[in-house]
Amino acid sequence: MKKIFLLFISTLLLSAALRAQDAETRLKTKGIVLTPPSGPIANYVNAVRVGNLLYLSGKGPMKADNTNVTGKVGRELTLEQGYEAARLTAICHLAVLKSELGSLNKVKRIVKVLGMVNCTEDFKDQPKVINGYSDLMVEIFGDAGKHARSAVGMYALPMNIAVEIEVIVEVQE
Amino acid sequence: MKKIFLLFISTLLLSAALRAQDAETRLKTKGIVLTPPSGPIANYVNAVRVGNLLYLSGKGPMKADNTNVTGKVGRELTLEQGYEAARLTAICHLAVLKSELGSLNKVKRIVKVLGMVNCTEDFKDQPKVINGYSDLMVEIFGDAGKHARSAVGMYALPMNIAVEIEVIVEVQE
Amino acid sequence: MKKIFLLFISTLLLSAALRAQDAETRLKTKGIVLTPPSGPIANYVNAVRVGNLLYLSGKGPMKADNTNVTGKVGRELTLEQGYEAARLTAICHLAVLKSELGSLNKVKRIVKVLGMVNCTEDFKDQPKVINGYSDLMVEIFGDAGKHARSAVGMYALPMNIAVEIEVIVEVQE
Repeated sequence: MKKIFLLFISTLLLSAALRAQDAETRLKTKGIVLTPPSGPIANYVNAVRVGNLLYLSGKGPMKADNTNVTGKVGRELTLEQGYEAARLTAICHLAVLKSELGSLNKVKRIVKVLGMVNCTEDFKDQPKVINGYSDLMVEIFGDAGKHARSAVGMYALPMNIAVEIEVIVEVQE
Repeated sequence: MKKIFLLFISTLLLSAALRAQDAETRLKTKGIVLTPPSGPIANYVNAVRVGNLLYLSGKGPMKADNTNVTGKVGRELTLEQGYEAARLTAICHLAVLKSELGSLNKVKRIVKVLGMVNCTEDFKDQPKVINGYSDLMVEIFGDAGKHARSAVGMYALPMNIAVEIEVIVEVQE
Repeated sequence: MKKIFLLFISTLLLSAALRAQDAETRLKTKGIVLTPPSGPIANYVNAVRVGNLLYLSGKGPMKADNTNVTGKVGRELTLEQGYEAARLTAICHLAVLKSELGSLNKVKRIVKVLGMVNCTEDFKDQPKVINGYSDLMVEIFGDAGKHARSAVGMYALPMNIAVEIEVIVEVQE
């Protein structure tokens, strides 16, 4: 009886530990390295917290060399390149979350995503582009990464970046 | 005296009952039938709840036959057709709310709408298009349907849908 | 000892008073006069409050004579004129806040801004345009004016206005 109890407790602790490590562990497993986010060079900030909600500023597809993926999907970029750009943007947001919260494990839920794709007028697959962002969020946070979302096509974005995405995140108290 | 008191109580109960039935009753009166919303076919969901707020994913003007109203307002579509498309989008959101909450009567307030119109460059009447969405919300929810709103013109939308609209809704505890 | 205590208390009260007067005082110092905001002429409202959050409807660059700055940045308007248009839009939002709250001093934090610039396809400086909005918010509210932000380029806006901006504001209880 005592053994069963200990086994039960151990299982509880282990599963809790696994859960707690999830996001950070998954990030490492994927070999994604987060560098401190660039600060905005104007009168705004990367994130504002109100209660348990964290509002993140729109970010673009910044690469490891600090340059951005630029151009319009449907003209300079293929759908696949757009998807990769959206994935890079997700990594930028993860870096902001890490910087704001200390650990990605403090993320409770990815709540709402507005995915804006720099594209041609006849491009119709904005959702498939923004999937690059959504897929990474679910790879890192599991079901807690599933969010409400809009994906739309833009006429012009800053510095001609391929996508700009903003997000609202629920964090643990 | 006792009669007056009973009358008073009855009136209170009746008005409370009417209020409680309002949204669902109005929906029926209008002959609007809600079908279960289509699930997103990617790593996102129709709605995420945080506290009393429900964030709904952007939806388009899906018709009863599961096809969408497509085209640009100002070119393939008239203002009136755009208005109808926005109204259809509101019905899609009502279906999501019904599915999430069980009853539309649990809606406390339509809080914030972002209405995006697929249109020509010289089209200037986005607000009149998005009125198709706002009007239906007020027809169903009364004053609780009045929301903060932005209405803007888009270069391209998924599958060339005529409008995409997202909304934040306050729900009862 | 008693004197030091009184001095301490006086300093506390004085600094609290200064803080409390800040936004309204700064507004006056700048000679900005707020006129009551125009009501939306449709089924929506200027602002909806949920808890401590105030969601403001998208506004445009309305001038003192009630006409709007119109045209596309990069064609009819220069970057500087776009900046001024964004600043005018901030003043419109201040007028809404004043009308809703009675005093700008009840603003706790400017939380999240979505800045949409009516621009040409090759325009890349949307952030510098929306700085006109962000700068004024920080001039009026200090650090509490610093917000999360997205700045993007639009194909078309209502009445061909130069910018449309929406904002979420945290208010004091």
